[in-house]
Amino acid sequence: MKLPKKVRIRDVGPRDGFQNVRTFIDTDKKLEIIDGLVTAGIQAIEITSFVNPKAIPQMADAAKVAAEVRKKYPDLEALALVPNLRGAENASKAGIRNVAYVVSASEAHNKANVNRSIDESVENLKELVLQHPELNVRVDIATAFGCPYSGTTPPENVFRLLKVCRELRIQEVTLCDTIGIANPKQVSGLLNAVKDGFPELNIALHLHNTRGMALANMAVAAECGITNFETSVGGLGGCPFAPGSEGNAATEDTVYMFEQMGVETGIDLEKLIETVSYVQANVDALVTGKMLKVKNSTCINF
Amino acid sequence: MKLPKKVRIRDVGPRDGFQNVRTFIDTDKKLEIIDGLVTAGIQAIEITSFVNPKAIPQMADAAKVAAEVRKKYPDLEALALVPNLRGAENASKAGIRNVAYVVSASEAHNKANVNRSIDESVENLKELVLQHPELNVRVDIATAFGCPYSGTTPPENVFRLLKVCRELRIQEVTLCDTIGIANPKQVSGLLNAVKDGFPELNIALHLHNTRGMALANMAVAAECGITNFETSVGGLGGCPFAPGSEGNAATEDTVYMFEQMGVETGIDLEKLIETVSYVQANVDALVTGKMLKVKNSTCINF
Repeated sequence: MKLPKKVRIRDVGPRDGFQNVRTFIDTDKKLEIIDGLVTAGIQAIEITSFVNPKAIPQMADAAKVAAEVRKKYPDLEALALVPNLRGAENASKAGIRNVAYVVSASEAHNKANVNRSIDESVENLKELVLQHPELNVRVDIATAFGCPYSGTTPPENVFRLLKVCRELRIQEVTLCDTIGIANPKQVSGLLNAVKDGFPELNIALHLHNTRGMALANMAVAAECGITNFETSVGGLGGCPFAPGSEGNAATEDTVYMFEQMGVETGIDLEKLIETVSYVQANVDALVTGKMLKVKNSTCINF
Repeated sequence: MKLPKKVRIRDVGPRDGFQNVRTFIDTDKKLEIIDGLVTAGIQAIEITSFVNPKAIPQMADAAKVAAEVRKKYPDLEALALVPNLRGAENASKAGIRNVAYVVSASEAHNKANVNRSIDESVENLKELVLQHPELNVRVDIATAFGCPYSGTTPPENVFRLLKVCRELRIQEVTLCDTIGIANPKQVSGLLNAVKDGFPELNIALHLHNTRGMALANMAVAAECGITNFETSVGGLGGCPFAPGSEGNAATEDTVYMFEQMGVETGIDLEKLIETVSYVQANVDALVTGKMLKVKNSTCINF
């Protein structure tokens, strides 16, 4: 198996993980978790999103979280998700310099998620780039593999958005398997096509474990040369379309697999699992990552 | 991704899944579940094990299950696990014609599991083959990748047992990741070495999802040319070394992944999920397979 020497993991738990948690997580607890992730060696964290707090109440403290994190960890890649121009403006005012702009590869999902057509989202993105030169903008392509409303996503839908990124000189793009429906063959096919068609782009992969294939998809992606992955501490997040299901790929399970395969992550798994433990105790959501239970195993080495 | 056209799945739920369930599953319920698996198109099932009922009370009705299944499904590959010669004798008396003889690649695990050294297990296997020409004997190599007591299993330990199989003209061998600790790179490495060193053997893979890598391991194994997999309905089984953890790779999740990748399984997923549902309602154990929750999802197609 041909694997990269190292991978870079961005923990999106504080945004994608937390946003589906019904009970509000106190700001100080959110910050405690972010602290734990930094202590474990994670260098990139999606710390919040700037969205309408009526839509996503969990993110109502976005500005406060942003201010605290920037003060405490000026060297951290502190990313905030933004769905539109207003979100980007608010992020910038809060001192954020790295934003992830989300647009879906599926028309139906874009409408449901950000209440506008893909064309409108693209127009907003162009305005964002023009109006905010102070921001490093990455693009998150949601439903890059499959959509709850439209089924399997045609690769052309993804290529279309990658062309937009190219025109706007945005090189950092995340392909998101929003509902955890991608399979390894599909992932391998799309990533190879993207590598061929858009070699200048730095592609990250954001996977969900709804159908159990997150690590399978991650392994084939690494074989395809992908070295950037977005995962969530504890595997928080769930799936709004499949209640009770798992959500994001768990950071701790991802770190374990890569380290076992000799791929460096730069992350201290023991410290990370302490943070997972803290999440379990303090967040009203299921930890679906496997490593916490395995840590308590009686195996000679876990 | 280079994948086989089809794979063959053996469901070991009625043995490996059930044996860790504390509450006795009534014989008629065990048979109902086996019925459900056959109806879903599964052609090979590990229906029970012939072991000391004091050690594994769940399997106390082995002879009855065997008699009923053979009567109802004479064409089913109905397999029974046996840990020693006595088990094989009892299986044969009960009309079973396919046995899986378990021996561990790790000395410590063999001692803990079947209370004898590997050498003794090998001697018993030789006697079994001589004394029971009426039995089709396959060998299950437990802890083929890692052992709870000894850590990572040196490949030589596996090769040693494969040489024994070769000498005894046993061609059907299952490599078992008993504690779900294998990673894709390790699986790929071992399977390629086995393919090169023992091309005449028909290797099956038995995976556990304790650390979330079952489907990842299965996908690389399929790429290595493995077409036989052992999985458990509902992902039953757990892990005695990591309480609360997942156990066997779930049959339904396995079928879903392969079918999505265009690999034929011959199994009707909808019917299989009905059986998973029955298991959830009637067996005092956690269904850890993902597809049952996903079946209830609001995605346009799951």
